[in-house]
Amino acid sequence: MDKFTMEEARSHRVGPDFSLADVDPTSTPGFEWDKEAWEREFHEHDAELDELQEKLYANGRSKVPGTGAVLLVLQGMDTAGKGGVIRHVFNAFDPQALKIKAFGAPTAEERSHDFLWRVRPHEPAVGQIAVFDRSHYEDVLIQRVRHMAPPEEIERRYDAIVEFEREMASRNVRIIKVMLHISQDFQKQNLIERLEDPDKHWKYNPGDLDERELWDEYQEAYEIAMKRTSTDFAPWYCIPGDRKKYARMAVKYLVLDALRSLNMSWPPANFNVELELERAKKS
Amino acid sequence: MDKFTMEEARSHRVGPDFSLADVDPTSTPGFEWDKEAWEREFHEHDAELDELQEKLYANGRSKVPGTGAVLLVLQGMDTAGKGGVIRHVFNAFDPQALKIKAFGAPTAEERSHDFLWRVRPHEPAVGQIAVFDRSHYEDVLIQRVRHMAPPEEIERRYDAIVEFEREMASRNVRIIKVMLHISQDFQKQNLIERLEDPDKHWKYNPGDLDERELWDEYQEAYEIAMKRTSTDFAPWYCIPGDRKKYARMAVKYLVLDALRSLNMSWPPANFNVELELERAKKS
Repeated sequence: MDKFTMEEARSHRVGPDFSLADVDPTSTPGFEWDKEAWEREFHEHDAELDELQEKLYANGRSKVPGTGAVLLVLQGMDTAGKGGVIRHVFNAFDPQALKIKAFGAPTAEERSHDFLWRVRPHEPAVGQIAVFDRSHYEDVLIQRVRHMAPPEEIERRYDAIVEFEREMASRNVRIIKVMLHISQDFQKQNLIERLEDPDKHWKYNPGDLDERELWDEYQEAYEIAMKRTSTDFAPWYCIPGDRKKYARMAVKYLVLDALRSLNMSWPPANFNVELELERAKKS
Repeated sequence: MDKFTMEEARSHRVGPDFSLADVDPTSTPGFEWDKEAWEREFHEHDAELDELQEKLYANGRSKVPGTGAVLLVLQGMDTAGKGGVIRHVFNAFDPQALKIKAFGAPTAEERSHDFLWRVRPHEPAVGQIAVFDRSHYEDVLIQRVRHMAPPEEIERRYDAIVEFEREMASRNVRIIKVMLHISQDFQKQNLIERLEDPDKHWKYNPGDLDERELWDEYQEAYEIAMKRTSTDFAPWYCIPGDRKKYARMAVKYLVLDALRSLNMSWPPANFNVELELERAKKS
């Protein structure tokens, strides 16, 4: 039996010696490809996940002191599969406790503020699970590659991001940052697929090919960003993305890991249970 | 084979002669109880729903003129099953296109504004499906029952609500308003269940029993509110709620009906497909 373990999911963590070139986007470490095994492992912990997310929501609702939250940051080149991860990992989650926020190109108003200004309002509240589909990292990725900000401002942002995330983590927000790492070939195949299927034309943007021409520059920007901002309280995970299902499984396990680490109980009653039971029965 | 039809779902619509007392909360009109048939009918249109919601999202993202949206308003007495409807009807939906908003007791700031002030920011954007867990109707339900606003202000609100919803509908927002109608016995049983299970204590609020004492007043307020505000563009549906699964099925079909009525196509390409395909292949 092929098991997918938490150790495998965690093994994608970006450390100080990280080199993006060493990660094979087509690999599926810790898991031999087998559809049946995949289905089983993907859903293996669904009941536990279900309970954990309800506990998180319950603790938030009940304002239990110390209740945490989860933030998943998803980054990747175009067609890396961010939408698919959100859809497949989270559609078993209770939609009430989820906050999905997609960050597009900043508006004129957003550009007139510090880069974190538009991000802060979307921090997860206690008891919430927030997912960023792209994020404040765009401000050190496309902005670096496209020289949209001076080098010293980009430099400043790495540290500002670490401080921003440190502050969130200090309020018990578990932060998981994932780069879905795909190969150039895989992207090409995905773009062609979108162009060949009229039902998918809406997903295609001619600008995607312009960014694709800067592939190497983006890889460099990703590597630097991940190395500079992968911390104990907000680690980066670089997950091979060419096998979409593998990536979805790894992300699901990382979310499970984060939820488990919150060590939650059900909120205690803040009323006299016996008395209320008596009242209810008489009502 | 027992089929659940759209006609059955629509039959719960509140018309001018509506009487809440005539609706049996334990009934399951149009559907004999059978677990297997239920499973089948509940998931019967999942593939179509999936495509419709993706189309809606796609049209919104592509800014196709005339793209609509969906708003589902959920109301009901405590323990009526609003959370369960959200969870079971919508967890097959792509979480990216969903906006769930729960309205609690208004804050001091919210109370200092018109009752619709806090609601307007949560109108669905084009391409979105919004769900209100409680809503602006609380301002003519609890506020009427508890005399929290003068009678003439309550009167004014019915018309203000109709105008508010008319304006939304004129922007192609399909509005579905659902009262999950449960019996007093069913509520009692639910409250006792919450009290007897420590894992559910967080769902219980001693205030629920206080509201329960005003059951008849609430039924009256619901009937008046539904009759005054059930319009062609924003109809109310009073759905029997004691059989939770029946209620979830009826709501699911109403959402499907609303999505179908938007008559959507996939957004057309706003670029030269042949040219882009050539570029992609060379890239």
